[in-house]
Amino acid sequence: MKLKDIIAAAVVLGSLASPAAAEGNTAVSVLRAGTRVQTFGPPENFTGTVRVDSRFKGSDPARISGGTVSFEAGARTAWHAHPLSQTLFVTSGVGRVQHWDGEVQEIRPGDIVWIPPGVKHWHGASPTAGMVHLAFSEAQDGKSVDWLEQVTDAQYRK
Amino acid sequence: MKLKDIIAAAVVLGSLASPAAAEGNTAVSVLRAGTRVQTFGPPENFTGTVRVDSRFKGSDPARISGGTVSFEAGARTAWHAHPLSQTLFVTSGVGRVQHWDGEVQEIRPGDIVWIPPGVKHWHGASPTAGMVHLAFSEAQDGKSVDWLEQVTDAQYRK
Repeated sequence: MKLKDIIAAAVVLGSLASPAAAEGNTAVSVLRAGTRVQTFGPPENFTGTVRVDSRFKGSDPARISGGTVSFEAGARTAWHAHPLSQTLFVTSGVGRVQHWDGEVQEIRPGDIVWIPPGVKHWHGASPTAGMVHLAFSEAQDGKSVDWLEQVTDAQYRK
Repeated sequence: MKLKDIIAAAVVLGSLASPAAAEGNTAVSVLRAGTRVQTFGPPENFTGTVRVDSRFKGSDPARISGGTVSFEAGARTAWHAHPLSQTLFVTSGVGRVQHWDGEVQEIRPGDIVWIPPGVKHWHGASPTAGMVHLAFSEAQDGKSVDWLEQVTDAQYRK
């Protein structure tokens, strides 16, 4: 596993040790677009090319962390769940989201996706167009995601 | 005070009683762009015209809520603080943010603003261009904001 993948995995798992966007806890801080090195979603937890930008992490007692995730056409997460929920805000493209035993739902710019605590689901691009969303979630005991099995092509295209 | 302002105040204060984007707590739900009626920031807590779209609120045990806020040029929040932080994601325009005793910082699309718990601050548009951001925060005992005095023109233009 390359270093970039280890970093990406840590980011996706929400296990960054230090507050990424904080300059202490008394000042408003701005994470400028384009100032954080892009990472990639590791193949253990993603299918296709998935890039992560502008990762941020709040500091205690806040639980929030997140980042901007870009999926190429056909790319998607593995099945996973968030102990304390995740919210997606679609900024461009056309995407898909599905919870276990649910229908695939198409998502488009401006849509806000609510993934309740503990709900097994996946999200990603459509087969023909990429999709970008901001994703943010709350950590429980420092953990914000539980990864499960991959989304097969048959599941994705159903 | 008009009904729309009461609703807007409730939204801004994070005191919506019911989970706005949830269909129970077992399904992924999508709040479609344009399907929630726009509200306005009340004059007690804002200067200028401020519109709020796509308000969402997670359900327990998550603490998250938020929405998209559009500030016309010159418009801004009053001074305020969030008991458990707020995060802003700028989607268009040019804006400003400042914490008490800090410098005014310009914010632009793609920037992510971290406002730590309890930090007195304001945010809004630039004097010449509007600004839109997604805003999301965590509630503490059901409360996500403490409103303070207005930002004077002298403070805003400094």
